[in-house]
Amino acid sequence: MNPQLPEPPALLALVDALRALPGIGVRTARRMAYHLLQHDPDAARQLGVAVEKALTELRQCERCNGFTQDPICPTCASAHRDATQLCVVETVADQNIIESTHNYRGLYYVLMGRIAPLEGMGAQEIQLTRLIERASDGEVTEVILATNFTAEGDTTAHYLTEALRARGLNVTRIARGVPAGSEIEYVDAGTVAWALMERKPA
Amino acid sequence: MNPQLPEPPALLALVDALRALPGIGVRTARRMAYHLLQHDPDAARQLGVAVEKALTELRQCERCNGFTQDPICPTCASAHRDATQLCVVETVADQNIIESTHNYRGLYYVLMGRIAPLEGMGAQEIQLTRLIERASDGEVTEVILATNFTAEGDTTAHYLTEALRARGLNVTRIARGVPAGSEIEYVDAGTVAWALMERKPA
Repeated sequence: MNPQLPEPPALLALVDALRALPGIGVRTARRMAYHLLQHDPDAARQLGVAVEKALTELRQCERCNGFTQDPICPTCASAHRDATQLCVVETVADQNIIESTHNYRGLYYVLMGRIAPLEGMGAQEIQLTRLIERASDGEVTEVILATNFTAEGDTTAHYLTEALRARGLNVTRIARGVPAGSEIEYVDAGTVAWALMERKPA
Repeated sequence: MNPQLPEPPALLALVDALRALPGIGVRTARRMAYHLLQHDPDAARQLGVAVEKALTELRQCERCNGFTQDPICPTCASAHRDATQLCVVETVADQNIIESTHNYRGLYYVLMGRIAPLEGMGAQEIQLTRLIERASDGEVTEVILATNFTAEGDTTAHYLTEALRARGLNVTRIARGVPAGSEIEYVDAGTVAWALMERKPA
């Protein structure tokens, strides 16, 4: 008879809580919990405080949906941004990547998702009417779609294009093609096919 | 002029706190933060509570170093365990693996590290005298070393063997060899070499 090692509930609760993080399985969650408790209780304390603070202080921007501590985020409120361009992205992570190019001065609208019928995400879930309202503020002259080049991202882009064009808005989509700096030989055939189809005058 | 996207401090603090987790870089930490805030605020709340509770309620067992909510952990306190065997492991994770074999009824001692001179971990850091004291309780008749089969684990095992044998204790080490269920063709040569060297009567 070998009774299984009884583990303290507070440890199990911490492992469970860490497992809720995306991409973290039970083994990794355990390693994280041991690490925090054994080697870095200060980091654990900071994590607890940061989660608490983030939950109470952060909200979604009323104009772009991004995370902010004010009703309107600093980007949407900035006088230095071009209010005639509105870039639609799926997530805040995508917004960060575009921002890191230092090549875009317009504003953003974060869908916080994409149309994915299989997951029960329809036009209602991504709040299409809010986007249309936002894009119809009289200042926006171009809506730039920067959804992913996946089946869901393509569906979303197609759907948004239809809906926004119907309101007389000018809609564009970021280019799909061979990545900068890559050799065609090593790019997947699907990408090359798109690059061919969407070729532009040289 | 393109001012970088200003991010709310509470978000940055959460990303920083998540980066302190082992194996988590800034990109993953960001994805985790967005996920918690956008899709799972309940999980975020639970994480905050669990960290707090774990820090206040958990301590290290006075006998084995494992995490527990009592001064002596339930394993060390159990009347169903064999107090004559003491298995020495590097981490609680290792203890869990051994426990999951359902094949060991003895007690444990968790080093919470190993001898690694390059990292400034010596005999003092792994509290050798505490282990010797624990093993000299008059009940323990066999100390089973289950440190890793790495350079540091081997050094630790060697060092512990010397120190424990000097006190007249019987010291063994778990077997090193070809993993159960594996084909020799696909096992690395180093392991096969050890398996040959440490062969036993069939």
